[in-house]
Amino acid sequence: MAEGIHEQLSYLFEPESIAVIGASNSRMKWGYIVPANIIAGGYEGDFFPVNPHETTILDHDVFKSVKDIPGQVDLAVVTVPAVHVTPVVRECVEKGVKTCIVISGGFSEAGGHGTEMEDEMLDVVRGSGMRLVGPNTMGVFSAPCSLHALMPPVRPVAGKIGFAAQSGNLGTQMLSLGKALGVGFSRFVCIGNESELNCTDYLEYFALDPATEVILLYIEGLRDARRFIEVACKTSTRKPIVVMKAGKTEAGARAARSHSAALAADESIFDGVIRQSGMIEADTTEEMLDIAKAFAAMPPPRGKRIGVLTWGGGWGVVTADALAKHGLELVRFPDETLRELDSVLPPYWSRGNPVDMVGTLDLSKHFACIKIIARCPAVDAVITLGTMGATSSFQSFVTENPGVMDEATGGRRPKVIAPKILEQLRASDEAFRAEVIQLIEDTQKPIIAVSFPTSGAVTPMLAKQSKVVIYPSPERGAKTLAALYEYQQFLERARALA
Amino acid sequence: MAEGIHEQLSYLFEPESIAVIGASNSRMKWGYIVPANIIAGGYEGDFFPVNPHETTILDHDVFKSVKDIPGQVDLAVVTVPAVHVTPVVRECVEKGVKTCIVISGGFSEAGGHGTEMEDEMLDVVRGSGMRLVGPNTMGVFSAPCSLHALMPPVRPVAGKIGFAAQSGNLGTQMLSLGKALGVGFSRFVCIGNESELNCTDYLEYFALDPATEVILLYIEGLRDARRFIEVACKTSTRKPIVVMKAGKTEAGARAARSHSAALAADESIFDGVIRQSGMIEADTTEEMLDIAKAFAAMPPPRGKRIGVLTWGGGWGVVTADALAKHGLELVRFPDETLRELDSVLPPYWSRGNPVDMVGTLDLSKHFACIKIIARCPAVDAVITLGTMGATSSFQSFVTENPGVMDEATGGRRPKVIAPKILEQLRASDEAFRAEVIQLIEDTQKPIIAVSFPTSGAVTPMLAKQSKVVIYPSPERGAKTLAALYEYQQFLERARALA
Repeated sequence: MAEGIHEQLSYLFEPESIAVIGASNSRMKWGYIVPANIIAGGYEGDFFPVNPHETTILDHDVFKSVKDIPGQVDLAVVTVPAVHVTPVVRECVEKGVKTCIVISGGFSEAGGHGTEMEDEMLDVVRGSGMRLVGPNTMGVFSAPCSLHALMPPVRPVAGKIGFAAQSGNLGTQMLSLGKALGVGFSRFVCIGNESELNCTDYLEYFALDPATEVILLYIEGLRDARRFIEVACKTSTRKPIVVMKAGKTEAGARAARSHSAALAADESIFDGVIRQSGMIEADTTEEMLDIAKAFAAMPPPRGKRIGVLTWGGGWGVVTADALAKHGLELVRFPDETLRELDSVLPPYWSRGNPVDMVGTLDLSKHFACIKIIARCPAVDAVITLGTMGATSSFQSFVTENPGVMDEATGGRRPKVIAPKILEQLRASDEAFRAEVIQLIEDTQKPIIAVSFPTSGAVTPMLAKQSKVVIYPSPERGAKTLAALYEYQQFLERARALA
Repeated sequence: MAEGIHEQLSYLFEPESIAVIGASNSRMKWGYIVPANIIAGGYEGDFFPVNPHETTILDHDVFKSVKDIPGQVDLAVVTVPAVHVTPVVRECVEKGVKTCIVISGGFSEAGGHGTEMEDEMLDVVRGSGMRLVGPNTMGVFSAPCSLHALMPPVRPVAGKIGFAAQSGNLGTQMLSLGKALGVGFSRFVCIGNESELNCTDYLEYFALDPATEVILLYIEGLRDARRFIEVACKTSTRKPIVVMKAGKTEAGARAARSHSAALAADESIFDGVIRQSGMIEADTTEEMLDIAKAFAAMPPPRGKRIGVLTWGGGWGVVTADALAKHGLELVRFPDETLRELDSVLPPYWSRGNPVDMVGTLDLSKHFACIKIIARCPAVDAVITLGTMGATSSFQSFVTENPGVMDEATGGRRPKVIAPKILEQLRASDEAFRAEVIQLIEDTQKPIIAVSFPTSGAVTPMLAKQSKVVIYPSPERGAKTLAALYEYQQFLERARALA
C-alpha cells in the first residue's frame, strides 16, 4: 500500500507531462494564471493547454480535448467551472491520465448541488486508478521538478519541508513567508475537499519521499482519524512531523465547517495521539515555520542542558524564563569551561550562564565564546542572542549618517569611510554566520540564533536560513528548542521499545 | 510630589543645554559615540564637551571641567570610567547641574568595590537636588527635542509611547524594532542601576507627560514595590501601562541578579497587582510592541463582539480559535448586516462570521465589506485578514516575472505593462490603508489588520503603523485585541468605583 501511493503520487509531484484543461488567454482567469505560473516557474516537461475554443495559449498549441493529446499525460490540472468538471474528469479517466488536480470550487464546500456534483465526479474517478487532488484546491508545488501548479503566483524556495495544508490561502501564504525567510519546501499540496486523495495519503507519500526530510501539516479535520494516526506513528520515527491543528475551539470548528468540506475530527482523540505518535504540535501559525525550519536545518539536542550567549543582560533574563517555562535547563558550566571563557571575556564577566558579552564589540570574541560553549560536553544546545547580524544597528547608523563617520577623519576623505566600514561590518557578520554553520556541523548540536528584525544586517541573513535559523525573540527560539528536544525524547522512547 | 518629579525630569527629557563629561575624539570610545549620537540626532540646544585633555570635539570647543561652562547645564552625560565618576558627579552638583546620566558601568552590578563606588557617588547626589539616571545605563531618548543621548546609534521614530526599561540592550533594540515597524516613541530611558532615580519615578513622569499617551515598561525587579503599585494604580485610569515582567522563573531571577543590581520583587505581589492596577501584561517581548502600538493607534473596543473579514478560510478558522482562547466572541451578524454583505459578495458566500471573501480579487469589495462590518452596531471591533497589503504576492510575481505579464499583450509593448501594474497595485493598497484609517476615525472602533510579512507590499506598510496596526499572525492580532478589551474593562470598573 505504502509503495503504491508513492508510485501513484510521483505522477503528481514529478510529472513528465501536464495538461491544463480550461486553459485560457484571458489574463484574469485561473485558466491563464495557473498555466502562466507553471511556465514562468520553469517546469521543463511536456505542457498541453486544453480548450475547445482556442488555438494558442502561452506559445503552446491548444488541444480540443485531453483525449487528443498524443502520448501519456501524467497530470491534468482542471480549471473549468464546477458544472463542467465531471465530463472533463471522465475524459481524463478515458485518456488514462495518472493524476488530476481539480482547482475549481463550488462543490461540497458550497453544499447543496455542489455536494451532488462532487459525488458524481467521485463516481467517475473511483476504481479508475486515477488519483485526484481537490476539488476546491489551490494546487501543488514540487521543488525537484520546479512545478508551480498553483493559483497564487508564489515561487517558494526549494528545501526539505514537505507541506500539506487543508487551506489554500494559509498554505500558499506560508510558502511566501518561507520565501521571505529563506525557508525551503520540497513539496506542497493544498488538500482541498479531499474527495479522493486525503491528508493521510500525502503524509504517506512524504514519509517515503527522499526529497522530504521534515513534514509540515495544517489540519482542520480528518476523514479517517484511525488511519491518519497509524501512518503518523510509523512516519514519526523516520521524519519529524510538525502539525498545526485548527478548529480546536467550538468557534473555530464552526468556521472550519463553513469554509471547507472537512469533517471535524474528534478533538479528544486528536489531542491524545499527538504526543504518543511523536508528532510535534505547533501551537500557532508562526510556530509552524519556526519549528519546521529548525528541523530542516540542524539535529535535535541530545538533552535539555542549554548554554546561552547574550549581548545584553535583559535578553538573557527573558531567555532564562522562556527555557524554564518549556522545561529546558540553563547548564551550570564546568570549571574548565569557565576558565576557557575567562581567557576571552573581560575580568568582570559574571561567570554564569547566560554568558553576557558585557558590551564586547569584537565579534571574534563572540564566536570564540560560542565555540567554547558548544564544545562543552555538559551542553546539549546553544542559544546565541543578538550576535547573528550583530552589526545591524551600526550598519543602519553608518548608512543614515555617513557624514558622522567621515567627520572622524577630519573630513580628509569624505564619503570613503562609510562604504568601507559597511563592507567590513557585512563581511564580519557573514564570517560569523559561516563559523556557526561549521560549528553545528562539527559538534552536531543545534545552535539557535535570536536576532531582532530591525532594518539592516538581519534581513539578508533571514533570507538564508537553510543551515542556521534566526528567531525574532528569545521566547520563539526557546520554544523551538523545546520542540526539537521533544522529538528527540520521542525517538529515544521509540528506540527503547523497538 | 508628582509635580516635583515632572519639573525635575523635564531637565532630563527636554534639556536646553547638555554637557558630555568624558567626551573624546577616539571613535571607538563611548565618549565619542554618545555625543556623536546627540549631534547627528539633531539636538538643537547648547552642547558642551568636557575633557581636560582636548580642545575640539565634533566641532565644539571643549571645557576642562563642567564648572567652566558658562550658564546653566540642564543635563550632564558622564562617560568616564567608574573610578573617576564620583569626583565628576561632585563637580556637577557644585555647578548646579539639574540632571545627570551616568553611562559608565562597573558599579553595584559588578559587586565588590563597584558597590562601594556607587554608594560614594550616591552620597554626593543625595539631598543635592540633582537627579541621576543610572549608573550602568545606555541613556535616554526624547522625541520632542530630538535628543539621542544613547550608547547605540538608534534613531527611533517619534510617537506616543513612553518607555522605561531595566535593560539597555533590550530597550534600545526595541526602539530599533519600532523603527523597522513604524512604531513611535515619545521618550525612552534605560533605567540602569536605579541608584537615585528609579522605575517608579519615570512612570510618574510619563503619567503627567503630555507627549506620552501609552506607557511601556520592561521590569526585572522593583526597589519599592508599594510605591510602584500606588503610582501604577493612579496612572492606569489616565493612560494604558503595558508591562513586561522578566525574571519570573527562578532561572530568570538568577540571571537578572547577575546582570544588574535590580532587586527581585516579590513575584506573588507583582502578579497579584497587575490586574487590580489596570496594567496590561505583555507575556512575551513581541507582545510589548504588539500591544503598545495598538494602544497608540486606536481606541479600545467597547465590548468583546468581533467581526472578522478574511481572504481565506483557513486564516478565519485560526482567528476564530484565537479569539475564543482569549475570551472574545465572533459576533452573529444581524439580518440587516447579512443583507448588506449579500449586495457585495457572490451568492455562494457563507453568510457567517468570519466573512470569507472567497477569492474576490477586487479590493473595493473588501473595503465595502469592512465598512459594513465596522458600522454594524453589534460589532465592537474588526479583524481583517490578508487584505492590508493584499497585492503583496502579485507585486512580487510581477516584479520577478515582468515577461509573463508582457507576454499577455503578445509582446507588443515589452517592459511597459509590469511597472504600470505594479503602480496600480501599490496605489490600490495605499487607498485601502487610507480608507481603514478613516473608518477607525469615523466609527471609533479598533480595526486590526493581519498581513503576512512576505516581501513586497507589506513591508512598506509596516513602516507606517501609526494609525493602523498590522500583525504577522491572527494569533497576535487576537491577543492584542484581548489586551485592548482588558483595559477597557478596567476603565469601566474604575469609573463605576469613582
